[in-house]
Amino acid sequence: MNTAELTELAQQLRVDSVRASAAAGSGHPTSSMSAADLMAVLLARHLRYDFERPAHPGNDRFVLSKGHATPLLYSAYKAVGAIDDGELLTFRKVGSRLEGHPTPRRVPWVETASGSLGQGLPIGVGIALAGKRLERTGYRVWVLCGDSELAEGSVWEAAEHAAYEHLDNLTAIVDVNRLGQRGPTRHGHDLDAYARRFQAFGWHTVEVDGHDVDAVDRAYGEAESTTGQPTVVLARTLKGKGVESVQDREGLHGKPLPDADEAIAELGGPRDVRVRVHEPPATRMLHAVRAGQFELPRWEKGGDDVATRDAYGKALAALGTGRGDVVALDGEVSDSTRAEFFAKEHPERFFECYIAEQQMVAAAVGLATRGWVPYASTFAAFLTRAHDFVRMASVSGVGVNLVGSHAGVAIGQDGPSQMGLEDLAMMRAVHGSTVLYPCDANQTARLVAAMAGLDGIRYLRTSRGAGPVIYGPDEEFPVGGCKVLRAGDRDRLTVVAAGVTVHEALAAADALDREGIQVRVIDLYSVKPVDRETLRRAAEDTGCLLTVEDHHEEGGIGDAVIDAFLDGRPTPRLVRLAVRMMPGSASPDEQLHAAGIDAMSIAAAGRLLVEEAVVR
Amino acid sequence: MNTAELTELAQQLRVDSVRASAAAGSGHPTSSMSAADLMAVLLARHLRYDFERPAHPGNDRFVLSKGHATPLLYSAYKAVGAIDDGELLTFRKVGSRLEGHPTPRRVPWVETASGSLGQGLPIGVGIALAGKRLERTGYRVWVLCGDSELAEGSVWEAAEHAAYEHLDNLTAIVDVNRLGQRGPTRHGHDLDAYARRFQAFGWHTVEVDGHDVDAVDRAYGEAESTTGQPTVVLARTLKGKGVESVQDREGLHGKPLPDADEAIAELGGPRDVRVRVHEPPATRMLHAVRAGQFELPRWEKGGDDVATRDAYGKALAALGTGRGDVVALDGEVSDSTRAEFFAKEHPERFFECYIAEQQMVAAAVGLATRGWVPYASTFAAFLTRAHDFVRMASVSGVGVNLVGSHAGVAIGQDGPSQMGLEDLAMMRAVHGSTVLYPCDANQTARLVAAMAGLDGIRYLRTSRGAGPVIYGPDEEFPVGGCKVLRAGDRDRLTVVAAGVTVHEALAAADALDREGIQVRVIDLYSVKPVDRETLRRAAEDTGCLLTVEDHHEEGGIGDAVIDAFLDGRPTPRLVRLAVRMMPGSASPDEQLHAAGIDAMSIAAAGRLLVEEAVVR
Repeated sequence: MNTAELTELAQQLRVDSVRASAAAGSGHPTSSMSAADLMAVLLARHLRYDFERPAHPGNDRFVLSKGHATPLLYSAYKAVGAIDDGELLTFRKVGSRLEGHPTPRRVPWVETASGSLGQGLPIGVGIALAGKRLERTGYRVWVLCGDSELAEGSVWEAAEHAAYEHLDNLTAIVDVNRLGQRGPTRHGHDLDAYARRFQAFGWHTVEVDGHDVDAVDRAYGEAESTTGQPTVVLARTLKGKGVESVQDREGLHGKPLPDADEAIAELGGPRDVRVRVHEPPATRMLHAVRAGQFELPRWEKGGDDVATRDAYGKALAALGTGRGDVVALDGEVSDSTRAEFFAKEHPERFFECYIAEQQMVAAAVGLATRGWVPYASTFAAFLTRAHDFVRMASVSGVGVNLVGSHAGVAIGQDGPSQMGLEDLAMMRAVHGSTVLYPCDANQTARLVAAMAGLDGIRYLRTSRGAGPVIYGPDEEFPVGGCKVLRAGDRDRLTVVAAGVTVHEALAAADALDREGIQVRVIDLYSVKPVDRETLRRAAEDTGCLLTVEDHHEEGGIGDAVIDAFLDGRPTPRLVRLAVRMMPGSASPDEQLHAAGIDAMSIAAAGRLLVEEAVVR
Repeated sequence: MNTAELTELAQQLRVDSVRASAAAGSGHPTSSMSAADLMAVLLARHLRYDFERPAHPGNDRFVLSKGHATPLLYSAYKAVGAIDDGELLTFRKVGSRLEGHPTPRRVPWVETASGSLGQGLPIGVGIALAGKRLERTGYRVWVLCGDSELAEGSVWEAAEHAAYEHLDNLTAIVDVNRLGQRGPTRHGHDLDAYARRFQAFGWHTVEVDGHDVDAVDRAYGEAESTTGQPTVVLARTLKGKGVESVQDREGLHGKPLPDADEAIAELGGPRDVRVRVHEPPATRMLHAVRAGQFELPRWEKGGDDVATRDAYGKALAALGTGRGDVVALDGEVSDSTRAEFFAKEHPERFFECYIAEQQMVAAAVGLATRGWVPYASTFAAFLTRAHDFVRMASVSGVGVNLVGSHAGVAIGQDGPSQMGLEDLAMMRAVHGSTVLYPCDANQTARLVAAMAGLDGIRYLRTSRGAGPVIYGPDEEFPVGGCKVLRAGDRDRLTVVAAGVTVHEALAAADALDREGIQVRVIDLYSVKPVDRETLRRAAEDTGCLLTVEDHHEEGGIGDAVIDAFLDGRPTPRLVRLAVRMMPGSASPDEQLHAAGIDAMSIAAAGRLLVEEAVVR
């Protein structure tokens, strides 16, 4: 395509953006119009992609970080012939795969869901890491960003990571149209302001007039030929470009154009331009994923105490030996989370993310889109830093394993800032998630391996302190199952626990037994999904579930058990022990006691319930 | 103090850091030792603070962003005479206020809890905004950061905001000791690497040898005399400085020194240095907080439909007229959240935070520490971006109002990336939080006003679409209450709803009534705390609670109602309607129907329960 043809293509993308939004009655046409030239040049001259083979290993990868510019994205799909005009006009309609914000669940050419700003570049870094460090097929990652979203700190976590890793296969394109949603951005059209920032973080920068297709073409070429550092193309554009009445004006974000017909006429009317996108190079998939033998670590039942975080680290390292597609990430705490064991044995598949949890989860997501199986770990408490990334990962439907260590008050003297006390709530509420909370080393190892085979977001919660090995190394722990550790037909109530409270519950059960009170004890290692059958049976047999968790009272195990009783069946009585106070500094045992979740507290609660004849 | 005395003070801070950690058997002495000179110079020459009057309006404000350096902080408190040596040695012991990480709940000289890295500077920006824009008493905000935490994106949100607002009353001090927890930082001792970044964001930078007390003194002076921009003092230091065996060595983070006695001897032994900190200037509190008349907006019951987000905006503006201590913040979406109404009427108390939710919440926290009453708003979905900041705010015990708009699938075509579907779960699990979810305009206005008088984190969930006004403008809505909208003694079950589902529930109740089935309808606008009394009565009277929410099934209203039944009393049967699928794009009504939470779905569930004689 020559300059004139490129311009025509860009105009068509504008026209179609206006038409699609008009048909939908909603959408973001002006945000799409500013980036039309940027997209046209990319499609016609630089992107290497086979729309008929989205999984081709040599394909470039494109991420629409400014996810609201779907009119532009879908207009591009039409221009390349991937969708037809009729489908374009189903934009935002019920049942259409052309949703308001892009989703890979429905559309095969979308790498990751977007719509929460500042996430595309971090995820693009993950994809680029896969490309450069693991796959080495030479593809380029292109990320189209807005200017407004550069205010997000996650963008600078990504910038730091990308430059440090010399990701010259990553190109960011910033549509600097100076207008955010509510009003002008801080820096308006001052491209230098953005350039200084990216340069300080180690990027190569190119500033262009985003409506000069030849200049944009040269800028992309410069990005492609720059080695050793990623490049950002900062493009000065006008929001609503091409239609005088909306161009560069405030107050029009996220609205269809007031007069679509007039706008389309002004843009020169509909076209029928088809663009041929360069094919990807023929390439073999360079990573032959090893699937070999491996032995999970094994601990002797009743042997020395072991911390589940240690079991995690060892199991992950073993898994990594057997599965070449397993990769690990950590946020500067791998000596604490024990991801360090994997890092030592498989350094080429370990990604240190430093203290940047958003970027760590985003990188995991990016790696997962490329088929890798990531395990990303930090303190459970600090996973809250990446909550929006976890949320968007669930929107994408991508599969990642997240591991949060240092669960609960049991960590001891470090105090509440380091304690995971709401992580079960956070992870349970993630769409399609699996939440696992092992109480011993063998169980941990088994679950670590099992997680790799699941879909969606999988969360494993580990503990800091060493605890008893109560299961043998060959025991199995199906996801969605539980373990009944004490049971009899004279059980007065059922104690449901997980993690550290399993051991407390067993001690309490022993104490109560000596007083003539039998209680059932369930290890609810699968917090989501829960074992409905076993919980229902316990409810029928004993009439009361006493849940106990090293977690806040909301959203954790106490709420999880309810899942078995949501169809209107009779419900058991419920008693909930959880962390209700703000902890201070104290030893682990002091913490458990102060929180009322230790063996003494469980036994006391059990005793009280029996005395009050609340339970049979 | 002269140079020699400063050096002695610094050595004492080191000695006491070693002693305190040794006594505790845990802690971060090496992270404290690197910053001892930085702290000594600050205390002796630059900080203006009266430890006997921590609320003095002229006091400088100090934030320990590297919150693990509590040995240093508490040693400083001893050196100024605020605590004695006996108390210092209670560090990290159960019951001691000298916790592992600092907390303002216990210690009056701590501005904000820290321990989750990368938060101190953003919060410091909030305090500095209060000082510069609102209070104008001339105090300085000093934030002591680690180098490792500069990887957090939130630091760059803070850097951007501070420079843009010309916060020359803010000084960051970075203890560049080159070693993180697991190992070396990316940039080691390359101060220029950090300086370039801060300069790009508009800061003045000073690089010093962090162990040359005279140079540090000059650097602080330079910061104090720099106008128009904030200053960062980048100090090259050695972790574990002063003790050869641990100095600048890896693998010693977060551990007491192996041989404390030897270390103390090497440091020259214990001292008895007392430092006199400069008093704050006599100053009157320049912000006379107006407490005047104001009228909440009023809507006619049964009049035109109104969106609760509109009611929020109007109520907040009115509240701001009456209360001069109310401030508002928003993340570039005030036209959507309607915080724009407040911004228009009270521009001097509105803080545009752009697309940076972490910094927005941090700024709210900083403002709250100064006694302001902040309302910070964005889309409910995007509040997940700031989850770790909300968590730490609860650890601090600070009071802020958070407002999340665009709740649920009801937003329509924008799709899941913009929908708040897990925000109730997130906010319920926050320690000490209040969670409110109004269904009409008058209720919203009342709750907005009521929130201002509560403690801790208060969350209000608003909706995008207009809905009926079902309450009169003089109705009251106590926090912890609910509204029973339909009730009779032949109720077969109770439908518990909130927000948009209240209207759906009422329509369903009407439909069922026409079929001869009476159901109770409860508006659970107070999601936390819930109205236990009314829920228990409904359980007793009707035997079944059918909850329906525009939210995921975990952690929201369905779980909230359980709170009334956690003491072992008989529990009602439970049926839960919630959003269980991944939404796409569709109109609001189509979304509610597809999610199975509309009137039709509620009626169908009710009918089924009655037919199956599950309910009486």
